[in-house]
Amino acid sequence: MIAEILATGEELRTGALVDTNSAYLARELEALGIDVSRHQCVGDDSATIATVLEEIGDRADLALVTGGLGPTEDDRTCEAAARAAGVPLEMKNDVLDGIRRYFAERRIPMPPSNEKQALIPMGADLLANPVGTAPGFAVMIGRCRCCFMPGVPFEMKRMFRDRVRPIIDAMTDSSLGVRLNRTLSVFGLTESATDERLKGLEQAFPGIRLGLRAVFPEIQIKLYGDGSDAETLAGKMQEATAWAAARLGDRVFSVTEESMAAALGRLLRQEQASLALAESCTGGLIANSVTDVPGSSDYFLFSAVTYSNDAKMNILGVSPDTLSRFGAVSTETAKEMAAGVRRITGATYGLSVSGIAGPSGGTPEKPVGTVCIGLAGPFGATARRLTLSFATREMNKAMFAMKAMDMLRRSLMAKKADERL
Amino acid sequence: MIAEILATGEELRTGALVDTNSAYLARELEALGIDVSRHQCVGDDSATIATVLEEIGDRADLALVTGGLGPTEDDRTCEAAARAAGVPLEMKNDVLDGIRRYFAERRIPMPPSNEKQALIPMGADLLANPVGTAPGFAVMIGRCRCCFMPGVPFEMKRMFRDRVRPIIDAMTDSSLGVRLNRTLSVFGLTESATDERLKGLEQAFPGIRLGLRAVFPEIQIKLYGDGSDAETLAGKMQEATAWAAARLGDRVFSVTEESMAAALGRLLRQEQASLALAESCTGGLIANSVTDVPGSSDYFLFSAVTYSNDAKMNILGVSPDTLSRFGAVSTETAKEMAAGVRRITGATYGLSVSGIAGPSGGTPEKPVGTVCIGLAGPFGATARRLTLSFATREMNKAMFAMKAMDMLRRSLMAKKADERL
Repeated sequence: MIAEILATGEELRTGALVDTNSAYLARELEALGIDVSRHQCVGDDSATIATVLEEIGDRADLALVTGGLGPTEDDRTCEAAARAAGVPLEMKNDVLDGIRRYFAERRIPMPPSNEKQALIPMGADLLANPVGTAPGFAVMIGRCRCCFMPGVPFEMKRMFRDRVRPIIDAMTDSSLGVRLNRTLSVFGLTESATDERLKGLEQAFPGIRLGLRAVFPEIQIKLYGDGSDAETLAGKMQEATAWAAARLGDRVFSVTEESMAAALGRLLRQEQASLALAESCTGGLIANSVTDVPGSSDYFLFSAVTYSNDAKMNILGVSPDTLSRFGAVSTETAKEMAAGVRRITGATYGLSVSGIAGPSGGTPEKPVGTVCIGLAGPFGATARRLTLSFATREMNKAMFAMKAMDMLRRSLMAKKADERL
Repeated sequence: MIAEILATGEELRTGALVDTNSAYLARELEALGIDVSRHQCVGDDSATIATVLEEIGDRADLALVTGGLGPTEDDRTCEAAARAAGVPLEMKNDVLDGIRRYFAERRIPMPPSNEKQALIPMGADLLANPVGTAPGFAVMIGRCRCCFMPGVPFEMKRMFRDRVRPIIDAMTDSSLGVRLNRTLSVFGLTESATDERLKGLEQAFPGIRLGLRAVFPEIQIKLYGDGSDAETLAGKMQEATAWAAARLGDRVFSVTEESMAAALGRLLRQEQASLALAESCTGGLIANSVTDVPGSSDYFLFSAVTYSNDAKMNILGVSPDTLSRFGAVSTETAKEMAAGVRRITGATYGLSVSGIAGPSGGTPEKPVGTVCIGLAGPFGATARRLTLSFATREMNKAMFAMKAMDMLRRSLMAKKADERL
């Protein structure tokens, strides 16, 4: 079955609004084992919409269309659908009654323009809208079953689930295969290095397709599996995931789409350890990521965002001598920051970052992108200096924060591995 | 001129990723006075991409294409472009040298798969990529000038600005009308309340169209102006912006698309004041927003992310009695946090947040969404309690952070207004 998606509306065409409906519908169709061959987006010009619908009618078996069913002048999808289907519009009295009831129940006078929403292409099947005034409808255009839904996301989602899903279920052969996907989240390898390491996966596991996606600063590896039996496919996906994980080692921080902060939190919780942070250039980003995880108060105690040198000395006890001899961005300072925040909070681990996120502040010896990461724990304190320079201040902050969390994560993983020996 | 946009990639086709590039490019073209007639999105199948490119080549004068220029197996846009243009692929040695240099500068060994990125359709014009390895290119397909850019948003934006804009400028007739837009950023009003206050704007300023867009937790008001003379239109836009700003009062925090943190930073800088933060439930989000602004080290000193009560007492000097009598989420604690962080840093202003971001942790008296914001300054300390509950923990954190920054911003605005009297 060939499926296509069409979104209509001036806000989408002009880019004032990002189209999230099409991605939602694509994911829903994917989960049903139906490939979407194309998404399109046009404005509210009736002739253009009709042309695109006719093209889709020649190519596809199923089309999901959103937008343009509202009461205003610029809602012209109904008219375009009727034109493409070669039928007139017809006033549906039961729809009109429904719209009147909708307003009466809410004690709002019905604007006359809403009457227009009861005009539907003749012969179309109505798709009721329990949460809005715009009804949807399904109509054949060419060889394609076209389902028209409102553009408001929550109305569209409700109509898709309650009214369009049954239409699709009736169209799909129940012998249609199963589809599963898995995600491995990787940090610390480039996209091409990741790809190199996974060469051979598709050959080793026929029916499983590999996709790589850079979601800065991480790489997401997607395994898409197709099969005829759910249990067999699940087993094969498991094997392929393990195969990929073995080739990527501790660069894989999650196989469940959790964030780096959540993966780190999971390890801290397992160890019944607590964490305190001392952030300079990351400016609270690590703390923010850590506290985005529900329940993080179980292990996260405190972050000192010490932007000024005074704060580094007065709050964390970094020695003025260290700051003046080595500078704020130095392994010496990072080590004292990590040890300091660990000392004042009594946390198991103190993690610190001091660096130059840019755009200014770099020097020849310490260019923008220079970062020192300190880690203090029961074993003592250590620090590393790295240079990681990207296009913007926000990207540098994000990379520094990930690198710091990853340094602690890998140290906890190594500790676990040692304990197993 | 007819322009179209095409995005390629399996993640977009399957809905795993929402396509934001196309909206960005549509807005850029709109601002240049060029209407986009259609956006499309297909996967990474080379034959499908070639078919769509041929269709576009028959219809459009300009096409902006993103995605599929990476080094991996599933990056097939180059091949499809060559097929649609009817030319072979050609290895460009200068591009290959550039890619080698990119890796050498970063001291990373170059994976052999990156060589593929130097294969470009014969006769195409190269579009250099200063921030990544994938070069772009421009080539004629049918009657259409097609510009191919990487899918990674920051690489695409940079290439569009530096390389594609000049191509478009050369194509556009200078007699084309002028188009301008302005953005007012609003916080603290609902979308419909904002809409109500702006009723009459389009009537008062013919040729200017109003668009509202909720970018949680703020509302962006867009004014789109069309005219024949640049100077006249700029004056009219200025007047309409002032008209709107007058009706929205101090709810408008920016007319230059800056963030709330940047607007607040601007006011602090004007006052030569400094800021320290004490964050509990926002977990460093305010500090992160503040430090996303380049140069923020001029006024931002420190944030204490005090997640635990111990940290509130030991670092900020909140009294154990206050914590046990009123709890961590109370105006009393918020006031002591703000005063405490101001005291230990010597900052002009101390701003604090303590609240319940959820999903758990709420009680009947203090449900999820309860937040107390404290502000300490030369005038003394004050605190407010609010209930602001949204769908997710991240949304609550974002709303609490905005509310806190806005509280200080409005207080600085009021101070400025007083000084003018």
